Amino acid sequence: MQSFNPPRRILMGPGPSDVHPRILEAMSRPTIGHLDPAFVDMMDEVKSMLQYAYQTENSMTIPVSAPGSAGMESCFVNLIESGDKVIVCRNGVFGGRMMENVLRSGGEAIMVDDNWGEPVDPQKLEDALKANPDTGVVAFVHAETSTGVLSDAKTLSEIAHAHDCLVIADTVTSLGGVELRVDDWGLDAVYSGTQKCLSCTPGLSPATFSEAAVDKIRGRKNAVQSWFLDLNLLMGYWGQNAKRAYHHTAPVNALYGLHEALVMLGEERLESCWERHRYHHLGLRAGLEALGLSLIVDEAYRLPQLNAVGLPEGVDDATVRARLLQQYGLEIGAGLGEMAGRIWRIGLMGESCHQRNVMLCLGALESVLGRTGAIEAASRYYDA
Amino acid sequence: MQSFNPPRRILMGPGPSDVHPRILEAMSRPTIGHLDPAFVDMMDEVKSMLQYAYQTENSMTIPVSAPGSAGMESCFVNLIESGDKVIVCRNGVFGGRMMENVLRSGGEAIMVDDNWGEPVDPQKLEDALKANPDTGVVAFVHAETSTGVLSDAKTLSEIAHAHDCLVIADTVTSLGGVELRVDDWGLDAVYSGTQKCLSCTPGLSPATFSEAAVDKIRGRKNAVQSWFLDLNLLMGYWGQNAKRAYHHTAPVNALYGLHEALVMLGEERLESCWERHRYHHLGLRAGLEALGLSLIVDEAYRLPQLNAVGLPEGVDDATVRARLLQQYGLEIGAGLGEMAGRIWRIGLMGESCHQRNVMLCLGALESVLGRTGAIEAASRYYDA
Repeated sequence: MQSFNPPRRILMGPGPSDVHPRILEAMSRPTIGHLDPAFVDMMDEVKSMLQYAYQTENSMTIPVSAPGSAGMESCFVNLIESGDKVIVCRNGVFGGRMMENVLRSGGEAIMVDDNWGEPVDPQKLEDALKANPDTGVVAFVHAETSTGVLSDAKTLSEIAHAHDCLVIADTVTSLGGVELRVDDWGLDAVYSGTQKCLSCTPGLSPATFSEAAVDKIRGRKNAVQSWFLDLNLLMGYWGQNAKRAYHHTAPVNALYGLHEALVMLGEERLESCWERHRYHHLGLRAGLEALGLSLIVDEAYRLPQLNAVGLPEGVDDATVRARLLQQYGLEIGAGLGEMAGRIWRIGLMGESCHQRNVMLCLGALESVLGRTGAIEAASRYYDA
Repeated sequence: MQSFNPPRRILMGPGPSDVHPRILEAMSRPTIGHLDPAFVDMMDEVKSMLQYAYQTENSMTIPVSAPGSAGMESCFVNLIESGDKVIVCRNGVFGGRMMENVLRSGGEAIMVDDNWGEPVDPQKLEDALKANPDTGVVAFVHAETSTGVLSDAKTLSEIAHAHDCLVIADTVTSLGGVELRVDDWGLDAVYSGTQKCLSCTPGLSPATFSEAAVDKIRGRKNAVQSWFLDLNLLMGYWGQNAKRAYHHTAPVNALYGLHEALVMLGEERLESCWERHRYHHLGLRAGLEALGLSLIVDEAYRLPQLNAVGLPEGVDDATVRARLLQQYGLEIGAGLGEMAGRIWRIGLMGESCHQRNVMLCLGALESVLGRTGAIEAASRYYDA
């Protein structure tokens, strides 16, 4: 068996996004112990920089040592006890995955459904809360990775709190890409991934928990069903002041990478990063529209970092994506769930969100689809 | 905030061990998509090389996308259903953690206790099985990381099977360091870590499941309580023949590292790797004994890769370890649980298992403890 040398790719799918060489280089630094004083100091820096990324002062702000799916699970298994009523807003694949998590945590899931491609309707949430006054938790996806839709997290959270509910929010695709303010918006348990707009490698899930969430977790009647994700134990390892208690062996080198990604976010500043995503999204949009392709999500709630493009008539999904991959090393995403075969998902996340990638993608689509005008339209946008 | 540059360390604790530069370099190769055809081919190679490492033909042999603690949990949450009786053999910290996993999976844990520092007693397991004929699963730790003790996995597994039980085995510290034969010994659900004798970075947990285990998981009455660790779903992503179904985003770069570590294991060959661990253990032992230090575990079941050394009279544990770290960049492990303050754990795992490290450690101990003779004794061993 030989060493693996990955082919050259440009990652413009729904994540992972391209990883900056600084981050890759940081990950390749020599491993040190997970209880080494130097490592513990680095953990504190990661926590502090994640607080900035999430715009929160929550002391329980940590990267879960596993991918975003485990970050999701950490929110549900810690906050939900057997029999708890949870309202889950579902407008795509990841709302459905939230429901699975409620059920597997022993909770009762009350679903608030909206069409895929549309945001969560606050009025429906309000109605569901009125109909189910004993609900304790509301869960929704801020930025639906399966459709490219942004929901109004601030409004949904206000409604939930008005009904004395805690809020679980999926920010896997939103963190770093669009405005997200955990404290101002009152989000109680929030998870994300490293491989989207933070442009780090996949494998960690930054998460943050409000005081109210931590109180609920500390006061549980029963132990959290997952030992690995039990925040009562994780607080001992990640806790700010107490002596660090061994819980599990942290993924040391992956954390080097996240640390570097967060240093880079601090250099760029969060608002500039949000603006960069919007700026290149508009360049991509100009080109796609010139090609006669349409973004299926209404402009009012369209994610800049994840563009859901309707498949044109008579074009074979898999053939186009295979040609982009083979001829250009360019990965764009297929549709997921009920969107499979109906859309492409073109990501402009983190390091992938750059004028050179917008132009590469548009030029490749011009060529593969046999159409014209995209480069010209995008050039007009960028030169204006 | 500045980039993190780890201090130089030699890792001779209970893991992580030193990571070979080839592995660190592999991890820093550019990230590609988790559904990229080239990545899927690499996943197949990882599976096949893990089969070799575990000496198994189990098709369900995969790295769980999280540290060893999650690998442990994946075995318990998949195999145990509410009310299942599980016999857990406990002779250290990790047997206790297994008990936690049984309870949190809704099972009933019947404990078979042995003294810390001694192996699991097969007769006690036999007695417990006779007293509890409705037991379905037996769990034990092959190599106890908290004490440095090897248990007789083959015999324990035979006894369990004679009573129609499935076997869960913790091989976190044994995989790659001592003989381990999953198929020959009939182990049904086995997990390990990457950061011990495989000498890879921490963050993944290689696991393997026998046909009998997979049958039990497929035939469950209730869904696995963890969505992230549900093997019924993971089989869709890692499955050999079927179309790969997206489950979670794999930690792409961590898997590059594991792939390279397994390529290196194939180059060295498993038996040579076991022998190397034994060889340098004997060099270390010669030196430690010359210093008047004693290995607390009886030679008959002493792990070569993890040496539990009794703390000498009048020596302060933390002071010695701090001096080793500060003056030599050398990390050795403290005692864990009831062994805290009573032993040091000196690891000779994977890349750390080398004559230069044996000599460095012995020389540093000579100096810090103000004793003599270790280098001389180890030289005699190596030169013989």
